[in-house]
Amino acid sequence: MKIFKPFEVIREELEKAEECSRELLNSNVRLVLTAGGYILDSGGKRVRPGLTIISGKLVEAPLERLIPVATVMEYMHTATLLHDDIVDGAKLRRGRLSANEVFGNDVAVLVGDYMFAKAIYILAVYGGDKVLKVAAQTVQEMAEGELLQLEKIGDINLTEEEYFDIIYRKTASLLSTCCEVGGIVGEAREEERKALKNYGKFIGYAFQLVDDAFDYISDEKTIGKPAGNDIREGKVTYPLLSALKKATESEKERISQVLSTVEPTKEQIESVRQFAFEKGGVEETIKLAREYVERAKEVLNVFPESPLRKALFEIADFIVERTS
Amino acid sequence: MKIFKPFEVIREELEKAEECSRELLNSNVRLVLTAGGYILDSGGKRVRPGLTIISGKLVEAPLERLIPVATVMEYMHTATLLHDDIVDGAKLRRGRLSANEVFGNDVAVLVGDYMFAKAIYILAVYGGDKVLKVAAQTVQEMAEGELLQLEKIGDINLTEEEYFDIIYRKTASLLSTCCEVGGIVGEAREEERKALKNYGKFIGYAFQLVDDAFDYISDEKTIGKPAGNDIREGKVTYPLLSALKKATESEKERISQVLSTVEPTKEQIESVRQFAFEKGGVEETIKLAREYVERAKEVLNVFPESPLRKALFEIADFIVERTS
Repeated sequence: MKIFKPFEVIREELEKAEECSRELLNSNVRLVLTAGGYILDSGGKRVRPGLTIISGKLVEAPLERLIPVATVMEYMHTATLLHDDIVDGAKLRRGRLSANEVFGNDVAVLVGDYMFAKAIYILAVYGGDKVLKVAAQTVQEMAEGELLQLEKIGDINLTEEEYFDIIYRKTASLLSTCCEVGGIVGEAREEERKALKNYGKFIGYAFQLVDDAFDYISDEKTIGKPAGNDIREGKVTYPLLSALKKATESEKERISQVLSTVEPTKEQIESVRQFAFEKGGVEETIKLAREYVERAKEVLNVFPESPLRKALFEIADFIVERTS
Repeated sequence: MKIFKPFEVIREELEKAEECSRELLNSNVRLVLTAGGYILDSGGKRVRPGLTIISGKLVEAPLERLIPVATVMEYMHTATLLHDDIVDGAKLRRGRLSANEVFGNDVAVLVGDYMFAKAIYILAVYGGDKVLKVAAQTVQEMAEGELLQLEKIGDINLTEEEYFDIIYRKTASLLSTCCEVGGIVGEAREEERKALKNYGKFIGYAFQLVDDAFDYISDEKTIGKPAGNDIREGKVTYPLLSALKKATESEKERISQVLSTVEPTKEQIESVRQFAFEKGGVEETIKLAREYVERAKEVLNVFPESPLRKALFEIADFIVERTS
């Protein structure tokens, strides 16, 4: 199995989770297997199960419970990808056709529901009450995050607080939960559980900030989706938010017009990208992501040095390394 | 509060559930409130919370746990309605515009997810482990049922077993679960829990059979959606399944052709309806529904006579009464 480098330290457990994942996807409904399999096999790094396993192992969680819990964190993620692709009308995901393009929105909705439900079922069996509450809370938050983002489409008066609220819910919440449930399964001390939860939250912020910056920087070949996507969809993200602080009234008006256009031209999108770059918005975004990576590492000081803690450091660093 | 007649016996509890429902829908995201509220307010009979309350009260379940559990059974139902309307591309629901028509598929997906997650959260808090497992199992089954139905579109070789498998998952499973969880919250004896579960399953079968018959009988004015919908969508349901048993090869071929046409004409749809009527398929469907209603009432013999048991009888009878 090809493995994300920081996960070498849990290679064995991650392989078990992979096996567990295949066993759990055992429906007698063909579409669950094909569409579920399609998206599970799409080559993700298994960041979420990996985080759960490392966090759990840090506090000596019993593997027979930790592995299934970690496995279904990927199911929860997969379910949200399926549903988000419907929301975004995404045609590509990780460089290949999205599941809704291949199987249709109907199948994507239902297979997403199936995977959510399967995850909840497994969490009820292996995770216990606390894990379930945290996970259910997260599913609510993720849906709210996407809805909030829809509400704020085209709104250049989005505040920084609102932006962080959105990215907390849509990205950081699940990563934070992955780390926290590892801690809960291992009956971590309160201080340790909080550290894991915060680590997950901070890398979540960093990850989304970088992702939002990439939408301004990169092109279709390198990130598997077209650049300027957020601008096209009218989403105000940090690079623009930051740039707008230095904008004149007439600049604001021009940006606002592009963002509220349903099908902006390439030139319009390009002009907003240029603006964000020129005002230092993209740079600011990366800088802020780096700060969150440092904060994420800092909170882990509650744990003594170990190969597991080192792996969490590496994951945090990886998020911003891909920007340089 | 206007109330479904058999629920008069639990009016007070149902009103509490209504209040609980409003309290639970307390997101700070506007779209959750508007879209969630839109569908919750669309005038359902609250069959699912009502069944949970009656079932629970039959075995003296504590109200402080029964009410929230019952309340979120409607949330689970609402979530599936939101998602099913996307699958069906439904424009109408209970005689008014469906939520996906008003708010868009994106909002419908996400608000559905939110309501699922809220339901799971509340079940984790008030229902306990067993309730959660049963509920999570049901969500899986419902998604599988819809997927199975999609797989079988246009397939006139659908077996009776497959048909019942589909309607169990898409309809009977949740009704059965509503009754069962009432029993579980009340710590019902094994025999009582099973009786409640089976009662729910049998009325579920009856309900879906009648619904499928109505699609052949009724028109837009009386049931709030156009007749012949299932034929248009290529769904083989019991009226046709039953009629096909008596069909000649050439009749089968003709029917199969209509069902696999993407946009069949009114005349084509009408010809399939006629066929199902003439071969007695609609009549057979109603007859079978009546049988399930009787079986549903029979299993309740494990409980002594009481106003609550009588209410469950009335609900069962109501399902087939609307056909005469």
